[in-house]
Amino acid sequence: MHHVFGHTSPDTDAFVSAFAFAHWLNAQGISAQAYRLGEPNLETAFVLARWFERYPNDELPAKLLPYLDASRPTDIVGRGDKVALTDHNEPAQSIKGLAEFDVRYVIDHHKLGLTTPTPAYVRIHPVGCTCTILYEMFTTQKGVDITESMAWLMLCAIISDTLNLSSPTTSDDDRFVVQKLCELCQMNVADKDKLADEMFSAKSDVSHLSARDILLMDYKSYEFGSTRWGIAGIETVAPSQIFARIDELTATAKLIQAEKGVDHLMIAVVDIKEQMGYALAHDPAQNVIISKAFGVNCDDKVFTLAGVVSRKKQIIPALERYYQL
Amino acid sequence: MHHVFGHTSPDTDAFVSAFAFAHWLNAQGISAQAYRLGEPNLETAFVLARWFERYPNDELPAKLLPYLDASRPTDIVGRGDKVALTDHNEPAQSIKGLAEFDVRYVIDHHKLGLTTPTPAYVRIHPVGCTCTILYEMFTTQKGVDITESMAWLMLCAIISDTLNLSSPTTSDDDRFVVQKLCELCQMNVADKDKLADEMFSAKSDVSHLSARDILLMDYKSYEFGSTRWGIAGIETVAPSQIFARIDELTATAKLIQAEKGVDHLMIAVVDIKEQMGYALAHDPAQNVIISKAFGVNCDDKVFTLAGVVSRKKQIIPALERYYQL
Repeated sequence: MHHVFGHTSPDTDAFVSAFAFAHWLNAQGISAQAYRLGEPNLETAFVLARWFERYPNDELPAKLLPYLDASRPTDIVGRGDKVALTDHNEPAQSIKGLAEFDVRYVIDHHKLGLTTPTPAYVRIHPVGCTCTILYEMFTTQKGVDITESMAWLMLCAIISDTLNLSSPTTSDDDRFVVQKLCELCQMNVADKDKLADEMFSAKSDVSHLSARDILLMDYKSYEFGSTRWGIAGIETVAPSQIFARIDELTATAKLIQAEKGVDHLMIAVVDIKEQMGYALAHDPAQNVIISKAFGVNCDDKVFTLAGVVSRKKQIIPALERYYQL
Repeated sequence: MHHVFGHTSPDTDAFVSAFAFAHWLNAQGISAQAYRLGEPNLETAFVLARWFERYPNDELPAKLLPYLDASRPTDIVGRGDKVALTDHNEPAQSIKGLAEFDVRYVIDHHKLGLTTPTPAYVRIHPVGCTCTILYEMFTTQKGVDITESMAWLMLCAIISDTLNLSSPTTSDDDRFVVQKLCELCQMNVADKDKLADEMFSAKSDVSHLSARDILLMDYKSYEFGSTRWGIAGIETVAPSQIFARIDELTATAKLIQAEKGVDHLMIAVVDIKEQMGYALAHDPAQNVIISKAFGVNCDDKVFTLAGVVSRKKQIIPALERYYQL
């Protein structure tokens, strides 16, 4: 049995890629079970609700993935058990003690941050979404088909990760696969764009969420040399909702920073519609680094990072360059 | 331009995979040049000579890959230039200062030993040979065909790495691809087995080689925690040639060990026909480790490692377990 999961603080791709990859394995007679390492975020919850509505009679298991507590993986996964990672490969974003398990598969689109003691099946492409790679794996593996309902989920994951093909992480492969998945779901471009708008709106209505939930919604941690950063991503079409709660968010960031044991916690806001980035200032030492790394000054508690919409392609490389100097 | 190369002390797969992968890139309009990080070994020299004979008029460049000095890569590769690694991913087996170059592709079948600062295209499958993965990449990429002469080279690489499909590293994928490549080359099983015998005989006639050349023919280095090992592999159908020169080989091993700066240099002999493994004893401290790691005693300068024919699948894991205890 392979235990398949995406990263902690799962986004739509982490969810869907685990689900789809487990399906890919099972379809070949390789037994696999997909898990989620956290609750679905607002966007993913919208996608799943719409999916159940759209495909009520689908043969796929019409239920959420079972929960696997990343801090206590041995509740479910035995030591030495086979695991498969999707949409991540850095141990810091995975289950605790990853090295104690037998990593057999890695399907991802992030930088390589893992070493393995034995050869594993590793497929990492520099594309916008894990589901773009999975599409290629589905279509080139005999006997493994993408059902319409799976295609629809994968389409949502790519729309989510690439901000509807507008993020700088978007590749020609993503564009090609989105077109193919739309065909499989009998959707035209207008249908796809409408779905994207609905997903982004669902993700943006954080009015009923606590500051803590907003910051942990899309939280990832990184190491630059010996310095540990947490980066809380907030993608929104309603940035005013975020800016209105800036004091609450920055106060909570300090608590989460201590809790996660990171040296810095950056709050990175992306205005999806305007394609603008912002960082919320809350710590003098961090402010100095952000100023230098991005060449900008803080203006009333907010750094404006013009055009910075991708953590992977823009924020991480800028911080990496800062620490290399 | 992508600079493509296999590991240092290249074997047939390191040679052919670099050549074939550069072809795969170029066929898609991604400019690439393949290199070798060392002289062809006896088997590879045989394969190339036979290839030139068999396909004299082929459109492929009928010349050896240009040499790239792994200790002075910047003679050819500019800092920050794009590189593609085939048949290896551990920095210790690659060009010096690998982290200073922009690793864009990794096609390999070994354990993950690399991290990258940005997402790269990484394709590692737990199969017997890099060319088995390349076959899948050729056949699933539109507009990229395997010519007959390329197929013959890739067949030789798989025969070499899997000891003609007999090594424990051999997977069903390797068997499938060998069959397909044989069809492309109009070869039957008897032709393929005859070619394998000729390759192994070519590799085994080390009578005119120095002890140094024999030890460096298939040399790889590894790190187990803070301990560095070099492992000189010697695959042969004529083990008597090796045993007759044991004193010369072990004396030279001490020199190479000092030169490479490794803590241990293991001389691992494989009798391809009998599927037997041996380690030549030359250092009391190392003897203790080999005894414990493999549960065997040394008998007159030689450890007999019954059935141990794969460095990757058998020797490395045994040493890893030893260092983990």
